[in-house]
Amino acid sequence: MSEIRLSSEKKLRLFSGRGFPELSEQVATELGIPLTPTSAYDFANGEIFVRFEESVRGCDAFVIQSHSAPINKQIMEQLIMIDALKRASAKRITVVAPFYAYARQDKKSRGREPITARLMADLFKAAGADRLMVVDLHTSQIQGFFDGPVDHLFALPMLANYVGSKVDRSKLTIVSPDSGRVRVAERWSELLGGCPIAFIHKTRDPLIPNEAVVGKVVGDVEGRTCVVIDDMIDTAGTITKAVDALFEGGAKDVIIAATHAVFSGPAVDRLRDCRAVEVVVTDSLPLSEDQKFDKLTVLSIAPLLARAIREVFEDGSVTSLFDGHS
Amino acid sequence: MSEIRLSSEKKLRLFSGRGFPELSEQVATELGIPLTPTSAYDFANGEIFVRFEESVRGCDAFVIQSHSAPINKQIMEQLIMIDALKRASAKRITVVAPFYAYARQDKKSRGREPITARLMADLFKAAGADRLMVVDLHTSQIQGFFDGPVDHLFALPMLANYVGSKVDRSKLTIVSPDSGRVRVAERWSELLGGCPIAFIHKTRDPLIPNEAVVGKVVGDVEGRTCVVIDDMIDTAGTITKAVDALFEGGAKDVIIAATHAVFSGPAVDRLRDCRAVEVVVTDSLPLSEDQKFDKLTVLSIAPLLARAIREVFEDGSVTSLFDGHS
Amino acid sequence: MSEIRLSSEKKLRLFSGRGFPELSEQVATELGIPLTPTSAYDFANGEIFVRFEESVRGCDAFVIQSHSAPINKQIMEQLIMIDALKRASAKRITVVAPFYAYARQDKKSRGREPITARLMADLFKAAGADRLMVVDLHTSQIQGFFDGPVDHLFALPMLANYVGSKVDRSKLTIVSPDSGRVRVAERWSELLGGCPIAFIHKTRDPLIPNEAVVGKVVGDVEGRTCVVIDDMIDTAGTITKAVDALFEGGAKDVIIAATHAVFSGPAVDRLRDCRAVEVVVTDSLPLSEDQKFDKLTVLSIAPLLARAIREVFEDGSVTSLFDGHS
Amino acid sequence: MSEIRLSSEKKLRLFSGRGFPELSEQVATELGIPLTPTSAYDFANGEIFVRFEESVRGCDAFVIQSHSAPINKQIMEQLIMIDALKRASAKRITVVAPFYAYARQDKKSRGREPITARLMADLFKAAGADRLMVVDLHTSQIQGFFDGPVDHLFALPMLANYVGSKVDRSKLTIVSPDSGRVRVAERWSELLGGCPIAFIHKTRDPLIPNEAVVGKVVGDVEGRTCVVIDDMIDTAGTITKAVDALFEGGAKDVIIAATHAVFSGPAVDRLRDCRAVEVVVTDSLPLSEDQKFDKLTVLSIAPLLARAIREVFEDGSVTSLFDGHS
Amino acid sequence: MSEIRLSSEKKLRLFSGRGFPELSEQVATELGIPLTPTSAYDFANGEIFVRFEESVRGCDAFVIQSHSAPINKQIMEQLIMIDALKRASAKRITVVAPFYAYARQDKKSRGREPITARLMADLFKAAGADRLMVVDLHTSQIQGFFDGPVDHLFALPMLANYVGSKVDRSKLTIVSPDSGRVRVAERWSELLGGCPIAFIHKTRDPLIPNEAVVGKVVGDVEGRTCVVIDDMIDTAGTITKAVDALFEGGAKDVIIAATHAVFSGPAVDRLRDCRAVEVVVTDSLPLSEDQKFDKLTVLSIAPLLARAIREVFEDGSVTSLFDGHS
Amino acid sequence: MSEIRLSSEKKLRLFSGRGFPELSEQVATELGIPLTPTSAYDFANGEIFVRFEESVRGCDAFVIQSHSAPINKQIMEQLIMIDALKRASAKRITVVAPFYAYARQDKKSRGREPITARLMADLFKAAGADRLMVVDLHTSQIQGFFDGPVDHLFALPMLANYVGSKVDRSKLTIVSPDSGRVRVAERWSELLGGCPIAFIHKTRDPLIPNEAVVGKVVGDVEGRTCVVIDDMIDTAGTITKAVDALFEGGAKDVIIAATHAVFSGPAVDRLRDCRAVEVVVTDSLPLSEDQKFDKLTVLSIAPLLARAIREVFEDGSVTSLFDGHS
Repeated sequence: MSEIRLSSEKKLRLFSGRGFPELSEQVATELGIPLTPTSAYDFANGEIFVRFEESVRGCDAFVIQSHSAPINKQIMEQLIMIDALKRASAKRITVVAPFYAYARQDKKSRGREPITARLMADLFKAAGADRLMVVDLHTSQIQGFFDGPVDHLFALPMLANYVGSKVDRSKLTIVSPDSGRVRVAERWSELLGGCPIAFIHKTRDPLIPNEAVVGKVVGDVEGRTCVVIDDMIDTAGTITKAVDALFEGGAKDVIIAATHAVFSGPAVDRLRDCRAVEVVVTDSLPLSEDQKFDKLTVLSIAPLLARAIREVFEDGSVTSLFDGHS
Repeated sequence: MSEIRLSSEKKLRLFSGRGFPELSEQVATELGIPLTPTSAYDFANGEIFVRFEESVRGCDAFVIQSHSAPINKQIMEQLIMIDALKRASAKRITVVAPFYAYARQDKKSRGREPITARLMADLFKAAGADRLMVVDLHTSQIQGFFDGPVDHLFALPMLANYVGSKVDRSKLTIVSPDSGRVRVAERWSELLGGCPIAFIHKTRDPLIPNEAVVGKVVGDVEGRTCVVIDDMIDTAGTITKAVDALFEGGAKDVIIAATHAVFSGPAVDRLRDCRAVEVVVTDSLPLSEDQKFDKLTVLSIAPLLARAIREVFEDGSVTSLFDGHS
Repeated sequence: MSEIRLSSEKKLRLFSGRGFPELSEQVATELGIPLTPTSAYDFANGEIFVRFEESVRGCDAFVIQSHSAPINKQIMEQLIMIDALKRASAKRITVVAPFYAYARQDKKSRGREPITARLMADLFKAAGADRLMVVDLHTSQIQGFFDGPVDHLFALPMLANYVGSKVDRSKLTIVSPDSGRVRVAERWSELLGGCPIAFIHKTRDPLIPNEAVVGKVVGDVEGRTCVVIDDMIDTAGTITKAVDALFEGGAKDVIIAATHAVFSGPAVDRLRDCRAVEVVVTDSLPLSEDQKFDKLTVLSIAPLLARAIREVFEDGSVTSLFDGHS
Repeated sequence: MSEIRLSSEKKLRLFSGRGFPELSEQVATELGIPLTPTSAYDFANGEIFVRFEESVRGCDAFVIQSHSAPINKQIMEQLIMIDALKRASAKRITVVAPFYAYARQDKKSRGREPITARLMADLFKAAGADRLMVVDLHTSQIQGFFDGPVDHLFALPMLANYVGSKVDRSKLTIVSPDSGRVRVAERWSELLGGCPIAFIHKTRDPLIPNEAVVGKVVGDVEGRTCVVIDDMIDTAGTITKAVDALFEGGAKDVIIAATHAVFSGPAVDRLRDCRAVEVVVTDSLPLSEDQKFDKLTVLSIAPLLARAIREVFEDGSVTSLFDGHS
Repeated sequence: MSEIRLSSEKKLRLFSGRGFPELSEQVATELGIPLTPTSAYDFANGEIFVRFEESVRGCDAFVIQSHSAPINKQIMEQLIMIDALKRASAKRITVVAPFYAYARQDKKSRGREPITARLMADLFKAAGADRLMVVDLHTSQIQGFFDGPVDHLFALPMLANYVGSKVDRSKLTIVSPDSGRVRVAERWSELLGGCPIAFIHKTRDPLIPNEAVVGKVVGDVEGRTCVVIDDMIDTAGTITKAVDALFEGGAKDVIIAATHAVFSGPAVDRLRDCRAVEVVVTDSLPLSEDQKFDKLTVLSIAPLLARAIREVFEDGSVTSLFDGHS
Repeated sequence: MSEIRLSSEKKLRLFSGRGFPELSEQVATELGIPLTPTSAYDFANGEIFVRFEESVRGCDAFVIQSHSAPINKQIMEQLIMIDALKRASAKRITVVAPFYAYARQDKKSRGREPITARLMADLFKAAGADRLMVVDLHTSQIQGFFDGPVDHLFALPMLANYVGSKVDRSKLTIVSPDSGRVRVAERWSELLGGCPIAFIHKTRDPLIPNEAVVGKVVGDVEGRTCVVIDDMIDTAGTITKAVDALFEGGAKDVIIAATHAVFSGPAVDRLRDCRAVEVVVTDSLPLSEDQKFDKLTVLSIAPLLARAIREVFEDGSVTSLFDGHS
């Protein structure tokens, strides 16, 4: 026969951008391998340079990058890493983006707007990504923006388990901070045995002209322990206003829970100062020491990411990861 | 100079599949041109054949097809029309799908499911479509499934105007039939001056095992005129159960309003027999005489489609079409 | 080394649409594995839903679908299955279409027609198919419509062997029912030792105006056993008129042989009533009990499909399957 | 308004490769414009260089190249011209290939063969071609190899008209030189009032071992004027053997007619020496003085190409060009 | 006729990112139209939002963005603007990037590096760009990274004219600061009448271990006015060391000239403090007041960009813009 | 489990075009496997036919073709081989082009020129190539023309080693024959311990009008052994004029060294007759006996290609091949 035969091997490699290396390290530790050594630095004018220090030929590459601040730079760095992997003959490239940037720009609200969440998927594809792995997307439809497999992991059950273990479930009401997250509140309710749900209806105050908006609680919250949920907390304006409205509506206690702790601008002050007893988030994004405060609880998603990466590599079932939750 | 010069002309042409030719005719009438004559028939084994009877070279083609039953055949016919237009040198091809099929399959709810709403966008692209025009999508994110311009028209203001003109707005509550449409209810509320909203929370009845689901009204409906809204009515199960729950909750009156009258299976019986006083829909899909009943009101979207097509053709602003509504 | 190594495995999986599950079952039995369990059903408005019940990650997927009636639905179901496999990380997806729909629309006969056979290939590609496997294409050029490997299997030798074993080859004439299949008749002749061939030349009858067409036998058929061949039998009009013309031309006996038994409309009546002694087809398409009749012989292509699938999976030679036939 | 407005103009430009500049010049003369001045030469190692001497920005470019010998160089030159036009902002690029090279490799006859006719279409697309214009393709299915509009022009009616005007139509039989061209013979017959058709059936001679093939006439040729037709004449082996077989079968007269005069190797000698009275071809390919002989008639396709180019440019109907022929 | 006809218009629109709005304004002033009003701002977490305030349907869009600091954000903003234009039905989108970011990463110097200059071209394409317009690329080959037309404008003649008008050309030597720019030096020499050229050869100093590099002047500079040229000045390290080497080599005078004034980190200090008498650059990138100094001369490229944009819009010749320079 | 499992194997296969089969044979010998048997011939009109004689399903295919004369035919043959491999289900296809044709056309020097080096990359991609392997590209940027991995091998160290072993390195000056290759000269200098470099500056002679160009040596060559280097020698005009200029400048000895011996037209005469003592090239291109002469040394690149192919196949490191050179 005119051929050389060799039995095939699969090789898993982890790569990390500079967005949140501690999370990547934890994932690597869970998997029992080091991150592939990588040189990455900025040129004087801000252009990013990346080079891998070991051969990556034929590997199954997982490129972890948290889309933290400065967000556009983190995205560009991940794109450049993908390009380098593609040109270095990596066999398969999976973008691991625990927090998927620009997820809120997932539709045109008015004419002449971009759909940047779709653009992100197109850019990853153009750079050479074969697959995406993400956690608790702002809307599930974003899965359909990528032309290929998307592993959509859920940290929500982990949050719900944590909250459910601390409160009297019969006193619980799940609250969506606006009309767009009621379906998410319902999923929390399902995980916690069918407790009631409520939401805040924002309406313009007819008595006060120009933009004044009041939040009216729809649903039963009086005397109850309310968990205000969201996929992300950015400036914390909406969610802390929801806390106020709930107490005005007679809530006994309020807990805030969200997957992605973006914590921009006044977020930390608002959360620290609001009347909620606890704020529960994950470490999908890095938090500086300044961004941590007493009543903040941070749950780690590294085990979730590591298990999913292993299943993907071994052709196991990612779906099965979520069986039997709560 | 080594060239022949000719001043350029744009030529608008309308094409219609066999899904709902009456609607296409009305759009054509609004625009003041006939539909381009087209031969379309089925071979004995069901394969579709299409041929245009006039030259379409260089035209700006709008291909109208309602995705009515049999739905897969209507889709395939539209794809075949696009292929024929592409190969006949049409300059630009816009898919006009007043009801966009498979819109509900816009995400993977569990593993190993398709995202058929994205597949639809890919199939139209593969066949040669340059643009899409759709009405009241199930979720706005579907705009991002297509790699190109999507004109997302809103019939919702027309429905809201109609309903708003018939009732005492101060007595009105807008009701989402489940947790997923609360944001749409809020848009109705905005169009009708900020009236209250409510929704039905489906929970498993702990007393009755296996799948028994009860709908609990969240929000204030007692003594009020409730408008249950949705983007489409398929079998009408959810929406008529919502009507029941509302009357149990003390509603005074109920009106049903939705853009797309799919009306499958038991839908017509359920709607006729339920206690709602009126059912308001548009003609985005064809209704047979059997599917019409006394309290049904059908509003025409032909003027909306015609205005949008003209704006697209003339490089006007589709966005401006929606200014000042309600 | 910064990597986890694992030896690679290939995993063959069979999937079946609802077009002709019995054939898929036979292929699975030949291969010694069950079909991958699949939930597939129609929503009330005809939209198809598909979900696989086992993990398909990394598998070499063969998706069998007969393009039987209702043909457009069967195609759409196969496209949706491919989309679901792509998004579930199947490694390679092969469309198995024993009868390739729309094969007759493989060119523009006149202006402004589609080339739907090419469109089909584009749709499969857009959905995510990597390869096609088909049987006895209407024209071999259709292989070139797909941008990737096409395994074009031949059932023709099986048909020719069967017929050759039943008749006196020295008395045999192969007959093409029209001018377009003469090359196919020649291949039959080659397989059966070089027997004579003939065809029916359709001309307009100058004596009878408007469309009247007469079929004139070109070639020597007097006193001979004629085998009228075709790739498919749809309404059986052309082929049964050929039988009449052959008997008028003095044929002693006539046998009809074709790969694909589409059998639309009056086909069964025409075949049953015509003077041919036997009609030989394969089971590339399902036949109901009503469509079966005394002189019909159905040969199974399941072994052919199973052998080809195994060779493709094992990187064997599909070409070699056809060595030494007849 | 924040825009500069300008009325749009279309600009037709003709470009010619070095394959058969005389034909391009004739097309230009028919259209009344000169060819766009072009520098084209070969570097010492055979690499081709092309540059256009006038701005081509925004033009509707028609790039004429005959795929004559050396055929691979002519193809590459046309690809390079397309690349240069694309990069110079031509608005639309139409490949005009009167003889489409590699048309005979339109399918895989056996495993591990290319489908070079499809590859050609892919290469033109990759280089930047928007459209193809071709004459009398070897098989019509090749239209479907290109992902875009193909103007398939027919020189066959011109040939048929010419032949029909010189002979007694009632004495005419159209002959296909093998089993693959019978459908083409039928089209000739249709254009000439329904005259009989015949073909040559090649079979291995059982008396002479190894490859010896005899051609048997199928159909009625005795005493008749036979026109042996084909799409192209390459080495003229098949067609001149057909002439011999026809005279053996009692033909009174034989005329040879084909669109593309490839005339390779022994073709001219064979044609000059055979007993056919006339050989009718077009000038889709260049013929040197050595390749011309007494009984050869060459019809010009320049008017056909020019009319089609004008219709394409003016958004007229190419289909209509072929109405009322013969 | 079944069509509406309208004469076609072309509409030029200018769009500006927030990288260097003053330059965009100057281009707009040269063209006599305002920039299209655009809302652009950053969300709290740094995500960019863009919306155009006027209809852009059918326009010929030129999107000007200087890739200044923070460079990755400027790139992402331009990509988002392109996405918004594509989805708003702009007819043609031209990226105007006077300084093309990442141009120095135009090849893999070693294994496992990206080719970010190619990635940039791919990202622009993926977002929807049809064309690029750039000024004095780092290497001309970058034109070939984009799959479409690239207008490569030259500011070099403007710089050469300016320098040539101030010095005694017979005393002039053009100097490349390293071995990679000698070809550019030669082009300067051609524009200035064939004056001599020289370059700095960097070699490791064998006397001083580890990385110590000395620059040796190759060519004749003694007593001459040297113009050190480059395409860009980033940290000014190489170019100011070249100035030192030239004076050591006996140069009488030194002028520095480069197109792109990146001016990162210590650049301004180095340039101010070096012995060159003048530093000549263009305004392809913004300079803060802090970055300006006495001997700095900034030439405007706005007229060049405006003329090129007008030619592209009017289908004129950009090539002709460069005729007769120097 | 519903699947058949099989352990995966990789299979390396070598394929050779007819450009320089001797080199391919040497590579095969180095690797210890025969070339895969291939039928390749030309039809009478020059169309190429290719067929592989063994199954190639699932193989890792390396397709070696030297782009020698007739260059366009060699390119087309390689494209056709790739198409055949793609359609025969090869798993991965690497184009091995030791000399990459059209590399000098890597940019637009003026408007309306092609970038044929990019077109080449696009054509290989369109045909189905996954990867490229090339030697000493004319400019490194060409790597970025291909959308995928490019293994850029360096024969330059082998040439430098050879030359360095024959001369007194302290007397050595490396000379670029024009301003475009100075960077390459610097790489030679680095490999040979930092020896001086020089180049030839071509200027128009002001005394002799019209195109007369004189080459002026820039750098120190008097009394030194000069090595004139280039990536390729085509007609040898530039390089032999450089030899003359060097001797005029006082050089003691001159050696010519280049990777690719194109040797067109007068090249052999010029090289034989020039005063250089030795001409060193590789066998990346075939040389006929007539093209060989006394002072010509040909180094073999077969071992380099073989080692690189083996590393690629085994997922080793190609980068490491170049460690420790010179």
